[in-house]
Amino acid sequence: MAEKTDPPVILGHNLWGTLTHHFGSDLHHHDVADGPDRIYMDYNATTPVDPEVVRVVTDALTEAWGNPSSNYLPGLKARDIIYHSRDTIARMVGGKAADIIFTSGGTEANNLVFHSAVEHFRKSKNSAEGGTNSKQLNGRGSLPHIIISNVEHDSIKLTAKHLLKEGKADVTFVPVSKVTARVEVEDVIAAIRPTTSLVSIMLANNETGIIMPIKDICQRVREVNKQRAASAPKILLHTDAAQAIGKIRVDAHELGVDYITIVGHKFYGPRIGALFVNDPGTTTPVYPLFFGGGQEHNFRPGTENTAMIAGLGKAAELVSSNLAEYEAHFLDIRCYLEQKLLAVFGRDKIRYNSHFPGSDILPNTCNVSILGRGLQGRRVLSTCRRLLASVGAACHSDRGDQPSHILLNCGIPYHVATNALRISVGRSTSHEDVDIVVEDLRDTVEQLERMN
Amino acid sequence: MAEKTDPPVILGHNLWGTLTHHFGSDLHHHDVADGPDRIYMDYNATTPVDPEVVRVVTDALTEAWGNPSSNYLPGLKARDIIYHSRDTIARMVGGKAADIIFTSGGTEANNLVFHSAVEHFRKSKNSAEGGTNSKQLNGRGSLPHIIISNVEHDSIKLTAKHLLKEGKADVTFVPVSKVTARVEVEDVIAAIRPTTSLVSIMLANNETGIIMPIKDICQRVREVNKQRAASAPKILLHTDAAQAIGKIRVDAHELGVDYITIVGHKFYGPRIGALFVNDPGTTTPVYPLFFGGGQEHNFRPGTENTAMIAGLGKAAELVSSNLAEYEAHFLDIRCYLEQKLLAVFGRDKIRYNSHFPGSDILPNTCNVSILGRGLQGRRVLSTCRRLLASVGAACHSDRGDQPSHILLNCGIPYHVATNALRISVGRSTSHEDVDIVVEDLRDTVEQLERMN
Repeated sequence: MAEKTDPPVILGHNLWGTLTHHFGSDLHHHDVADGPDRIYMDYNATTPVDPEVVRVVTDALTEAWGNPSSNYLPGLKARDIIYHSRDTIARMVGGKAADIIFTSGGTEANNLVFHSAVEHFRKSKNSAEGGTNSKQLNGRGSLPHIIISNVEHDSIKLTAKHLLKEGKADVTFVPVSKVTARVEVEDVIAAIRPTTSLVSIMLANNETGIIMPIKDICQRVREVNKQRAASAPKILLHTDAAQAIGKIRVDAHELGVDYITIVGHKFYGPRIGALFVNDPGTTTPVYPLFFGGGQEHNFRPGTENTAMIAGLGKAAELVSSNLAEYEAHFLDIRCYLEQKLLAVFGRDKIRYNSHFPGSDILPNTCNVSILGRGLQGRRVLSTCRRLLASVGAACHSDRGDQPSHILLNCGIPYHVATNALRISVGRSTSHEDVDIVVEDLRDTVEQLERMN
Repeated sequence: MAEKTDPPVILGHNLWGTLTHHFGSDLHHHDVADGPDRIYMDYNATTPVDPEVVRVVTDALTEAWGNPSSNYLPGLKARDIIYHSRDTIARMVGGKAADIIFTSGGTEANNLVFHSAVEHFRKSKNSAEGGTNSKQLNGRGSLPHIIISNVEHDSIKLTAKHLLKEGKADVTFVPVSKVTARVEVEDVIAAIRPTTSLVSIMLANNETGIIMPIKDICQRVREVNKQRAASAPKILLHTDAAQAIGKIRVDAHELGVDYITIVGHKFYGPRIGALFVNDPGTTTPVYPLFFGGGQEHNFRPGTENTAMIAGLGKAAELVSSNLAEYEAHFLDIRCYLEQKLLAVFGRDKIRYNSHFPGSDILPNTCNVSILGRGLQGRRVLSTCRRLLASVGAACHSDRGDQPSHILLNCGIPYHVATNALRISVGRSTSHEDVDIVVEDLRDTVEQLERMN
């Protein structure tokens, strides 16, 4: 990832001027992202910001710049906007305003959950050692145990690995089934130990779009919690819903989770996030990562980013109001795309890396391999003239020609995973866009096959 | 602080409608912040966002929404904007692009420094225990020792207190001199122990505006570092420059610090921040608070907030281009304000809580008490019809009638501190604004004195 802060050398002087002064105002912002003839289908990497969200952010930057902690009108005004957003965001995930802690994004929200679980275990253990019911916990050096899947985002996986490396937690990486690409409930239950303090499984995978059985997992873990109530602190339940929100219904109480990670830039909102916590500090523990001026009930201090919070609220409002429509549109477009690909390339040449028996997929996500020598995903995408898509998570975009470990973990054969394309569609992707993109892929594959 | 997330009840329905839909678009944004007749003089709490910064943020939200980790043009475009901002922000503080780590704000930046210092000590100690030069460090249970002042912002003070409470660090709170209101160099040097790993002193105090002798402190600490090079890891030097940037010149190498905290919303920028680190990871240690997708060289992962980063860059550019002008204007206005207050209230009734022999003050900050019974700062401000100011840090705005502990620590007598007003002026505050505000204060004081 080293090049990410290195000086840019890729763009010519004119474009550099355009970038820094106008940010390329000649570009359409919805469907076209790289000059008038590129079609963006990488909405799982990030989405454009909805124009209504942009307007709300701009208005708040201009008019609601008061410090939300100040006790005069400009402060109160900012505070009210923040409250309103908090409430809207909470309602999007079936919670109440007091359940929302604003964060800088999903990475921070995920880290906050892991930190909270580890601290909670430590404090519970300390108080248990003073008490009598501590048989299972107070072995010298006993560590909190955390269960995650083997297809989590790096902000979960690397946080868990860091805790493991530092000797702060034990971690079980439950493999997803190679039949369903899902984390199976029984595998999670089998991994539970007396010291298990957190189960964190994503709601939907960012590469395959596979939806995990979070509701069933939570139900079973809650039964375990009841059984062990006297002997060990309860197992906390977290789901990173970064990819699910705005695409499928997400309701904290239906799912039965304690924490949900919410990421604005995956649902046409700004680049901040929030953590839903079921009654933070009372029902569900939260231990802050930062200390400071008392904001967010001290769970996450720092002067609030009023404008981005306002924008996140607007993005949540759009999701709450229009989810059924978005979902239907995504499904329509993705099915059309999958049918077209089959029609053009034929059944022998196409493998869908998200189609697993009995597993649901995010409506907008198509992970597909076009089989054949020389058709590696990166090669295909860099040859395409119209399509902008990816081979996996954006933060892995510099890993050369290695196939995605997520796909390998799902049981996709190496030669198929190497050719994978993640095509994720958006709210304004049209049938015409799909026609163009499939034609582009056909031309690209023909060209690459001629070169072999 | 509990009420900060409680439902708002203060504003009537009409204003609430205005807030959520237009954010009070009838308000002027520069000088007038609470209807057309209020005059904002609380620029140390937060500043408006410069219209050029708003434009840059809006443009980036609209046009540069690509994921900066994506390897196609929308990603590269975002990456270039981020690089350009990084470079501009670095130049503002005399550094280079690679020295800048973007954070969600000052609180996170300050916490990142303390975390880095503690982790660095721990790792150095571990490797010293394996070696031979570890006499002074490897006593069982030896903790890193941190030196801060007793007038730091809560994001420093409470972070230090948390480390102390958790048994992760020893902390010395060096009192400022009651003669100069500054941290005296000799007091810092006297507090150094073999385990001292961090000295963190703010560059300018947020309430008094007093400028601390950071350059002298750094010079002396660096001499100590040279002497103990063989026996202990070097003492890291941090200054929280939240209040100084945009008001006085701040240059990392002139000051001789390893870390500088940069906070956008104190210099007409957006609500994000950055940490200057002198060669992060090589010359100066950085240990991340979060783990995730590798952004910011893994020092601070999470998808970058491109739009706010672009805005922070623009705000830094304005400072670099116009600092001399801003500084002269601030000084002119503050001196005019101080003269007017003396002229109107007389020398016996006015005490300047920032005037200490030999100490420099931020050009824009006037901390003043109008002496007399019933003239408590909060009471005066809530009676004023025109002036919007504060009695201290915004995050302490709900501490009732207690005087600021910062002022008490500076040796200001209790009855004077109780009446303190922090009046901080901005780039567009005019002589006329000062005339109005002083008249408003005169009317207010007359009214309150009649009520006694």
